[in-house]
Amino acid sequence: MSAEAVTEVWLDRIAAIDPSLRSFIHHAPEQVRALAAVAPKGPLAGVPFGIKDVIETADMPTGYGSSAYPGWQPCRDAPVVHLARQAGAVVMGKTVSTEFATAAPGATVNPFDAARTPGGSSSGTAAALGAGLILMGLGTQTSGSTIRPAAYCGVAAMKPSPKLIETFGVKALSQTLDVVGPMARDMRDLALLVSVCMRRPELAPDELVPEEKLPLKPMGLFLPVHDPVADFSPLERAASVLASVTTQAVPGWFEGLGAAQDEVFAWEASASLSTDRDLHWDKLLPETHAFMKRQQKGTFALWQAGIAARDHALADLDTLFGKADFLLTPSAPGEAPVGHARTGPATYNIRWTLLGCPTVTIPAGLGPAGMPVGVQLVARPGQDALLLRQAAAVEDVLRAAGIEARPQQMS
Amino acid sequence: MSAEAVTEVWLDRIAAIDPSLRSFIHHAPEQVRALAAVAPKGPLAGVPFGIKDVIETADMPTGYGSSAYPGWQPCRDAPVVHLARQAGAVVMGKTVSTEFATAAPGATVNPFDAARTPGGSSSGTAAALGAGLILMGLGTQTSGSTIRPAAYCGVAAMKPSPKLIETFGVKALSQTLDVVGPMARDMRDLALLVSVCMRRPELAPDELVPEEKLPLKPMGLFLPVHDPVADFSPLERAASVLASVTTQAVPGWFEGLGAAQDEVFAWEASASLSTDRDLHWDKLLPETHAFMKRQQKGTFALWQAGIAARDHALADLDTLFGKADFLLTPSAPGEAPVGHARTGPATYNIRWTLLGCPTVTIPAGLGPAGMPVGVQLVARPGQDALLLRQAAAVEDVLRAAGIEARPQQMS
Repeated sequence: MSAEAVTEVWLDRIAAIDPSLRSFIHHAPEQVRALAAVAPKGPLAGVPFGIKDVIETADMPTGYGSSAYPGWQPCRDAPVVHLARQAGAVVMGKTVSTEFATAAPGATVNPFDAARTPGGSSSGTAAALGAGLILMGLGTQTSGSTIRPAAYCGVAAMKPSPKLIETFGVKALSQTLDVVGPMARDMRDLALLVSVCMRRPELAPDELVPEEKLPLKPMGLFLPVHDPVADFSPLERAASVLASVTTQAVPGWFEGLGAAQDEVFAWEASASLSTDRDLHWDKLLPETHAFMKRQQKGTFALWQAGIAARDHALADLDTLFGKADFLLTPSAPGEAPVGHARTGPATYNIRWTLLGCPTVTIPAGLGPAGMPVGVQLVARPGQDALLLRQAAAVEDVLRAAGIEARPQQMS
Repeated sequence: MSAEAVTEVWLDRIAAIDPSLRSFIHHAPEQVRALAAVAPKGPLAGVPFGIKDVIETADMPTGYGSSAYPGWQPCRDAPVVHLARQAGAVVMGKTVSTEFATAAPGATVNPFDAARTPGGSSSGTAAALGAGLILMGLGTQTSGSTIRPAAYCGVAAMKPSPKLIETFGVKALSQTLDVVGPMARDMRDLALLVSVCMRRPELAPDELVPEEKLPLKPMGLFLPVHDPVADFSPLERAASVLASVTTQAVPGWFEGLGAAQDEVFAWEASASLSTDRDLHWDKLLPETHAFMKRQQKGTFALWQAGIAARDHALADLDTLFGKADFLLTPSAPGEAPVGHARTGPATYNIRWTLLGCPTVTIPAGLGPAGMPVGVQLVARPGQDALLLRQAAAVEDVLRAAGIEARPQQMS
């Protein structure tokens, strides 16, 4: 098939499915055709790609998930978008975000069940991937905004260590916590995308040893939080087929990192969103109002205490990881909840975001309600390359055992 | 005098002096009058204020010091600009920056000698302060772009610890290094501005004990680098009148932090500037081309080594600071150099920027050529409040000894 014909297949698919999925906030077929006609060759050549609406683009409006800046058109692509385009990606459009990547959901539904949330804040990229409308895309994460929606929609995603992917041109919430989150359909596609976003060709799957020889290194099974409503059966199923998984004890200080993350977020977001809050309050959604009121209760002293708790934990990482380089934990407390008023809890994500630990969510089959579930693999800060390799090995084992989320053919 | 009358005095001053100083890249008197008429009351009420052109403003074009984005008009103020305006500051205009805050100088001259550089990259804010066209303003620093021009222009400035002032809406160079640098005419004005930018009222001078009771704590005199052309006499003069200054030995690892800063900067800037470089190359200045070519030689491995060198140093801070909480060092190797092709070396700034140590430059009289000089006071990361207090005490002692840069009456 010619490149033009391939593009038409993707456009037809979006035209058929997105009216009910609502994963795109901006999608213009003529623009996509023009972009596909000139997309350069490269590791992502021709890959249909989605960009979360909080990430700036020079040729598509960027609304930050809000109606505060209608039709706003930035003057340049965020560098991470530019890197993907230079590698050949074809941007199909801007994907739905919660307002300013915080609490107020957009219109997107879950591709596996339209009655359920796709998760958020990177709702559109996750749903478009889960429905097979794109093959790769970008989200962002400050609490659990990349890992959780990816798990809910049956796709792969990474929250990298801070500083490894450029964040300029991304609407900021927290200088300490914000990262760009690459998202894809499986771990090998994800590694390829991450290699482009990080400018590290050695992370690409071609550079990995052949599939059957990927070594599976020891992992600690980590069930950290008292959470009587969580369903750990998908994690236990995955762990049961993975060799060398041993239960890792939870340090006493781990639980408190949740409040620490919340306070770091609150104090920084009350600055980063100050302009929007003070000048555009009447245009913002009620959930955003509630979010902003909460953030404004943050104080510098609580921020300092949160940073101190993080630094204390980082000095004790050996206790957290034990003898393993990786921890295996839930990506979310369960399957995507029914309803669209909320995007689900970030309980199993916020502490890793605070610590700067890279994490991935690996598709791990379906849960009791038939919805996709993921398992989250965590590594020490900066060990992003090791993590991607281990995650590919984990995915291989899960697939060999029949544990995978089948691509959804939404109609 | 009425607020309107005060505004006219400032406007007259700019009209008289800026045609030769060239510190503003955007200044529209009618706009200033309109802003002054509605500026809220607050700690900065009515303060004439300058914003470096790499910081986005909703009502004034933001060119990032470049001709790549002519007349570009962002949709909102950077949060740090919003905080200053909410505190009552009256923005007189956008001040000249080197292109993208890197190497290519703008048109600004030094207010003490038009044949000399004002320093950079925050050239316009420093020069406008030194000439008395504004009372406060904002710069940025990735290497030495706030401290050095402030010292060259005889004014006070701070490079804060990372994360304490929001950087969203500021053109990025390096996620690790970039900070917003508040600038003012003296240490008490500077503390007031920092208190607004950091949202920490306790840093304001009103909260300091009365001048005569500010305690002067021990400082280490720190002359770190082999630099045969540097002139340390201004620093020695300042140290001679300050009690409790003892020479602090330089750790063996300190020198190498310069190369480490350079490699961290190179790898991150080759991403942050990628869009500008790849799509607007022909519009950029020759010095920017040279800068970008240098940055593109950066590698991830060298970035990792630079971060490791920083972390090694941070683990050995007690050796660096000895028994003192503060180090006293040059702000720059000497007075502002003659000529406008370069903005002067950042030799004495880059290592503190890498370490995340907060620093201030304190006006310290005139040098041998009659140009202003500053001394740089450095504290441990996060000790910004302590640093501001000590700097005010140092400034008091220097002034009592007649060591100060007289305001320049440029004509």
